[in-house]
Amino acid sequence: MKKKFLLLNGPNLNLLGTRETQIYGTDTLQSIESAVCARAEELGVSVVCKQSNHEGELIDWLHEARDEFDGVILNAGAFTHYSIAIRDAIAAIRLPCVEVHLSNVHKREEFRHHSVLAPVCMGVICGFGSMSYLLALEALAKAE
Amino acid sequence: MKKKFLLLNGPNLNLLGTRETQIYGTDTLQSIESAVCARAEELGVSVVCKQSNHEGELIDWLHEARDEFDGVILNAGAFTHYSIAIRDAIAAIRLPCVEVHLSNVHKREEFRHHSVLAPVCMGVICGFGSMSYLLALEALAKAE
Amino acid sequence: MKKKFLLLNGPNLNLLGTRETQIYGTDTLQSIESAVCARAEELGVSVVCKQSNHEGELIDWLHEARDEFDGVILNAGAFTHYSIAIRDAIAAIRLPCVEVHLSNVHKREEFRHHSVLAPVCMGVICGFGSMSYLLALEALAKAE
Amino acid sequence: MKKKFLLLNGPNLNLLGTRETQIYGTDTLQSIESAVCARAEELGVSVVCKQSNHEGELIDWLHEARDEFDGVILNAGAFTHYSIAIRDAIAAIRLPCVEVHLSNVHKREEFRHHSVLAPVCMGVICGFGSMSYLLALEALAKAE
Amino acid sequence: MKKKFLLLNGPNLNLLGTRETQIYGTDTLQSIESAVCARAEELGVSVVCKQSNHEGELIDWLHEARDEFDGVILNAGAFTHYSIAIRDAIAAIRLPCVEVHLSNVHKREEFRHHSVLAPVCMGVICGFGSMSYLLALEALAKAE
Amino acid sequence: MKKKFLLLNGPNLNLLGTRETQIYGTDTLQSIESAVCARAEELGVSVVCKQSNHEGELIDWLHEARDEFDGVILNAGAFTHYSIAIRDAIAAIRLPCVEVHLSNVHKREEFRHHSVLAPVCMGVICGFGSMSYLLALEALAKAE
Amino acid sequence: MKKKFLLLNGPNLNLLGTRETQIYGTDTLQSIESAVCARAEELGVSVVCKQSNHEGELIDWLHEARDEFDGVILNAGAFTHYSIAIRDAIAAIRLPCVEVHLSNVHKREEFRHHSVLAPVCMGVICGFGSMSYLLALEALAKAE
Amino acid sequence: MKKKFLLLNGPNLNLLGTRETQIYGTDTLQSIESAVCARAEELGVSVVCKQSNHEGELIDWLHEARDEFDGVILNAGAFTHYSIAIRDAIAAIRLPCVEVHLSNVHKREEFRHHSVLAPVCMGVICGFGSMSYLLALEALAKAE
Amino acid sequence: MKKKFLLLNGPNLNLLGTRETQIYGTDTLQSIESAVCARAEELGVSVVCKQSNHEGELIDWLHEARDEFDGVILNAGAFTHYSIAIRDAIAAIRLPCVEVHLSNVHKREEFRHHSVLAPVCMGVICGFGSMSYLLALEALAKAE
Amino acid sequence: MKKKFLLLNGPNLNLLGTRETQIYGTDTLQSIESAVCARAEELGVSVVCKQSNHEGELIDWLHEARDEFDGVILNAGAFTHYSIAIRDAIAAIRLPCVEVHLSNVHKREEFRHHSVLAPVCMGVICGFGSMSYLLALEALAKAE
Amino acid sequence: MKKKFLLLNGPNLNLLGTRETQIYGTDTLQSIESAVCARAEELGVSVVCKQSNHEGELIDWLHEARDEFDGVILNAGAFTHYSIAIRDAIAAIRLPCVEVHLSNVHKREEFRHHSVLAPVCMGVICGFGSMSYLLALEALAKAE
Amino acid sequence: MKKKFLLLNGPNLNLLGTRETQIYGTDTLQSIESAVCARAEELGVSVVCKQSNHEGELIDWLHEARDEFDGVILNAGAFTHYSIAIRDAIAAIRLPCVEVHLSNVHKREEFRHHSVLAPVCMGVICGFGSMSYLLALEALAKAE
Repeated sequence: MKKKFLLLNGPNLNLLGTRETQIYGTDTLQSIESAVCARAEELGVSVVCKQSNHEGELIDWLHEARDEFDGVILNAGAFTHYSIAIRDAIAAIRLPCVEVHLSNVHKREEFRHHSVLAPVCMGVICGFGSMSYLLALEALAKAE
Repeated sequence: MKKKFLLLNGPNLNLLGTRETQIYGTDTLQSIESAVCARAEELGVSVVCKQSNHEGELIDWLHEARDEFDGVILNAGAFTHYSIAIRDAIAAIRLPCVEVHLSNVHKREEFRHHSVLAPVCMGVICGFGSMSYLLALEALAKAE
Repeated sequence: MKKKFLLLNGPNLNLLGTRETQIYGTDTLQSIESAVCARAEELGVSVVCKQSNHEGELIDWLHEARDEFDGVILNAGAFTHYSIAIRDAIAAIRLPCVEVHLSNVHKREEFRHHSVLAPVCMGVICGFGSMSYLLALEALAKAE
Repeated sequence: MKKKFLLLNGPNLNLLGTRETQIYGTDTLQSIESAVCARAEELGVSVVCKQSNHEGELIDWLHEARDEFDGVILNAGAFTHYSIAIRDAIAAIRLPCVEVHLSNVHKREEFRHHSVLAPVCMGVICGFGSMSYLLALEALAKAE
Repeated sequence: MKKKFLLLNGPNLNLLGTRETQIYGTDTLQSIESAVCARAEELGVSVVCKQSNHEGELIDWLHEARDEFDGVILNAGAFTHYSIAIRDAIAAIRLPCVEVHLSNVHKREEFRHHSVLAPVCMGVICGFGSMSYLLALEALAKAE
Repeated sequence: MKKKFLLLNGPNLNLLGTRETQIYGTDTLQSIESAVCARAEELGVSVVCKQSNHEGELIDWLHEARDEFDGVILNAGAFTHYSIAIRDAIAAIRLPCVEVHLSNVHKREEFRHHSVLAPVCMGVICGFGSMSYLLALEALAKAE
Repeated sequence: MKKKFLLLNGPNLNLLGTRETQIYGTDTLQSIESAVCARAEELGVSVVCKQSNHEGELIDWLHEARDEFDGVILNAGAFTHYSIAIRDAIAAIRLPCVEVHLSNVHKREEFRHHSVLAPVCMGVICGFGSMSYLLALEALAKAE
Repeated sequence: MKKKFLLLNGPNLNLLGTRETQIYGTDTLQSIESAVCARAEELGVSVVCKQSNHEGELIDWLHEARDEFDGVILNAGAFTHYSIAIRDAIAAIRLPCVEVHLSNVHKREEFRHHSVLAPVCMGVICGFGSMSYLLALEALAKAE
Repeated sequence: MKKKFLLLNGPNLNLLGTRETQIYGTDTLQSIESAVCARAEELGVSVVCKQSNHEGELIDWLHEARDEFDGVILNAGAFTHYSIAIRDAIAAIRLPCVEVHLSNVHKREEFRHHSVLAPVCMGVICGFGSMSYLLALEALAKAE
Repeated sequence: MKKKFLLLNGPNLNLLGTRETQIYGTDTLQSIESAVCARAEELGVSVVCKQSNHEGELIDWLHEARDEFDGVILNAGAFTHYSIAIRDAIAAIRLPCVEVHLSNVHKREEFRHHSVLAPVCMGVICGFGSMSYLLALEALAKAE
Repeated sequence: MKKKFLLLNGPNLNLLGTRETQIYGTDTLQSIESAVCARAEELGVSVVCKQSNHEGELIDWLHEARDEFDGVILNAGAFTHYSIAIRDAIAAIRLPCVEVHLSNVHKREEFRHHSVLAPVCMGVICGFGSMSYLLALEALAKAE
Repeated sequence: MKKKFLLLNGPNLNLLGTRETQIYGTDTLQSIESAVCARAEELGVSVVCKQSNHEGELIDWLHEARDEFDGVILNAGAFTHYSIAIRDAIAAIRLPCVEVHLSNVHKREEFRHHSVLAPVCMGVICGFGSMSYLLALEALAKAE
């Protein structure tokens, strides 16, 4: 049975490639999603991609993922640092979830060094640009 | 004139009975809402029940409650700990509001010990499972 | 077998009804104790009431309660915020204990927002005046 | 070419004039928006007004503003103090943004003294009631 | 009608004159009490002196003072720094209370710089040895 | 009767236009004062301008302003962050006072984010260069 | 040889009796100084009174006091909370210095609870209105 | 002359062997006291054992110990973490005092890691169950 | 030219597979190193593996790596949390360095949540057991 | 089978008896080691003694101790307060380890009050000079 | 062209040699200034010496120094720790400035460990008594 | 008898002149050591130079210095900020030690502002590049 993963991007990530490119690079969200899907095919898994600027919508999607997916790749953007509600959603659905970031958040403002989500995730990957997503996919696909 | 209360549940509470049952018990949200309504009938009051994972939607409902309800029973879930926006909504509508929690939040992670909502609520009841809701209803119904 | 609960009031609560009535209301401790006992009778349980301004006496009473009572309703007053000794006593006797406060402590000085007792209690009820005690009794009486 | 500004109001500001009038005054949001539009006409600029209690909707609107507006007047209400997601949206769209508040937030609760948005805004104006908005408009209109 | 004041000394002050004389001087508690009584006579007021190492006993005495005394001179010793229960007692009895210390507590360990009692007292006098008590008596006697 | 305002500039602002122009711009203090006076004439009010590097002199001037002026525009420079003495002076004279800054202080060092003056001012305007002063004047002139 | 004391008042105390009378009372500085001088005569000592809003001037006066006075009564006003320079001046001149305050500073804003001067003073007297000064004088006059 | 030591146990230690045995073990206080006395005999010293849940009583006993004992073994239980009054008593009596704990308090809750008594004790021994007491006795007996 | 990477393991990692296997898994360091080398061959790069419990030796090796390697995979173990000296070494040699951890450090003790090394690394990967190393290798090999 | 313990001394302890003798006493490390060995013989156990100023060497020795010793007496000196690497080594080898200090560290600088090692040790003994080591040996020898 | 430096001494330094000589030594300010001038002559530079207890005067002098001096030696005394106004003045005039202290401030009270001036100075020299000034002069004279 | 000093450089300083030259300048460690030795000859003293990346080795060298040297010039690099073990070594050997830094550490990251070594050193010199060492040498050579 082919494994199925949800790729979830949070607030402002829809602007990727057009905003602050010195931090986030010139890849658009679409090109990242395409690259993830292509890599998924190579790995024999499938990926569904969603993005929202609404905390509540991300929570709704996480809930729905429970019965449909085998794991989640999550770049929660700024919500990473304060959304205890998303944290609770991840803890509740009990799917393996990998927290990813394009930039190395530890090089940026102090308030970006702390993640309220990391303690309920399987692991964290940050700092490798769009490759962060591909590594997360690989980690999920190869995890037992 | 029969008193009318709004029972508002916040993020992830729709998963009750299916998630982390060692913390939250096996009651579903539906069964809790039914129990509250049944108790309301005994007390000669009525209750309307709503749930949302969206902070904005909870705020909209609180605003609408101003002219329709005599009080609010609120389990804001994780929003309890950071949603100053919900706090402002409660303060604005000037209805008596009781903050409830299923679990004794003081036994859990440090960040769950602090409520930004409590200072604008009438009182707080936590730790009694679904009975927390029933006690809150009773408190509202009997308050002058 | 009829359940038996201990109602324990801490320092300064003997002055109820005569002190700072804008915060604590005009009920005297005696009237609250009478109301609790009356309600106990309705619920088919019994309640014994004690008050002390002495931390050590409250601890002695909690110890003695182990073999005589099925639960404790505790308003530890100011000890709530610093008496780790009372906390240890509650943890030691392993009886269900409900922390109650007349006022909503979260609306008052910062140092009253933190309870060292709450993590070892079953639950907390605050802000409903003398009704806080009645709700606590009900919670204990109906708990399995 | 006539400059065009977006006036964005956040959570609970729809209640203006009806809530806590001792803090926020008796002007309604509508009357403030009218005053801003009238003043805009005098200054030879135009203003579009929106309000939402939903963080995600405010972010969506900020994104859309990129190609349509020359600047933003933002009263983010309670989101001022914790929405890093809105902060990132402001930083991303690179439009001049003026943070405004009706009340002098520095006279209120400690947690209202800190703004997560101010560091990515052009400037801040607070404490002048509805005039705060008019001054912000003037600042944007006259900025080079 | 002659004014009557209660002079209350807390824990370890019974050892005065025999302990750490480099900090507290060589006056015994008895000699201080005598000096205060002598000065009271000169001022046309009377003073009753008590000492206890028991927090609860100090609270009991404060309660009893309500109907018998016109003011309290209080050296609560170490309780100054943590006994919220004594603070509540002072606030409850609504008698003018002057906090005194023999030594200048601000020259000693950091934890002695903060008093939980001072905010509910009329004033504070510290650092003048046994004269601190005489000044406090004078302040009370001359207060309107 | 024509309203009269005091424009007070604090330490180092005499160097404006010659120091750190990347932060403060190239306007000199004289040119700003001229612009404020010109704008005052348009608004039918008058302005007197003073500058000092001496905290005590600023306090003296604030005291003298009580009987001569209807309001104060104050850029206290670095004193903004620690001069409780100036804060007390503002509170004492009970004139409406507007705190202004040329730069958006929230974009600068952490210690510049906190103002000890703001809680006793009418409002704050920062980040608009010399226009901050003009907006403050307008706010004072139009305030009732 | 008659003892001679310096009475030093700091910033804003020249406004006494005219400012915030609900906090500081209606006595003017002049009337307080007169009362202190009158009391001095009774005690057989003399007092010289000075006031300044300038930190540097207070320091100069403290230096000059070394050879002329036997002690200092100091109400440093707001400087109490941050002027390490005045603290160093007091420590340097090695005269007994009594810190006084009209109001009980512990009942006011948090930042007024801490004194940087107290650790180098002989003692502290606060909360007794103008009587604080008289008690300080008495303490100095009677100290050996 | 045979040395004589006081073994003092604080709040809740009377419950030893019956409470939270996974933390404190199954020895009762009586059996520990017997073991200490037996060991004392071997070492040629004598021990008197007392226990109280009352802070004031422990202070009274420490005072009385001054003339009767050569040292104190003290397990102050929860008072270890906040009783500055007991700390002052130990400092006052100037007897060598050894702080003991059954459990390794550093493995438990954060608030148990700090002792207000340790700085005035001779030394600290924790984590060895009832052997902690025996080691403390040995340390006192062999100290010069 | 074939890229060459240094795999550096810090203190206690030599015990892998034999210590705390519930946290770190049962892989030995040798088996992880073998897996990394095997994967390197597939990716057409080479890896040299070293381990030390000595902070100074890790620094020496990082210095030597400057001229010999194209990047570093670093699991600094406990040094991650306090070795500013290793941080300076990484910053000095200017090679891309990936910080890896076997466990998700954010699920463990508070002091393991902060890395002093991360701000000078290219990125961080944690929580995937021995796969963390393989993902890091891939990230380095594919980085431009 | 005779039990065998490792006595490990950390940085600067080789200077014992020659440095800061007012804090550490005049015993040399050699004399302490001899005393421990002598006592070991009495107790029917054996002890091997090592000292190093190198954190890495202490870790190496702890690793080697796993198969050779039944417990460790550790005075890690200054490493006590920051070497998480040594902490991890102790946790990894799972031997009972007793933390000892010659002086009562709680009487010294604030930063010496916290031990990062204590939570993974069996117990702590401090303040008894060289006797601390003997008591630790006894505790290990008699532990089951 | 001969380099010219300003030697600026802040509050209380005029008392040097007469105050707290155990901390500051017995040199008077005059003797230090003479030594600096003598050394200047040897180095072929000139020095002008000023001292003030007034923060504002120090700022005025720093401003004037811009066109007249090539560098500043500054002992700001207690202002070192809180005068952001002097910090801004140093930053504004863009002359190399060396912060000096007679005593090693790191050995004294905690609040003397932090300098608000150091980040805008060229360097800091402290702890060498009057030689601190000579070293600073040498550093300035030899700097390019 | 010629004075003899030890120049000790800590971790990463061997890379001087090749690493981060915008911070540390282009001088190599060798050229600095040569300059110090040359200057020593002029001053009639001698200097021995050592460098290590190993904390333990620096401690060993400090111990050995006791009998061979008259003082130490120490640039402990990153160890400055956390090596309490080096601090203890300096305190133990009781030689005058001067802490030096090439850069003005107060202009860099927050964690570089605090030195654990400074309180046990004679003085600190930072910010003058390689001249910092020469000034330190001079200070030591001229100290009595």
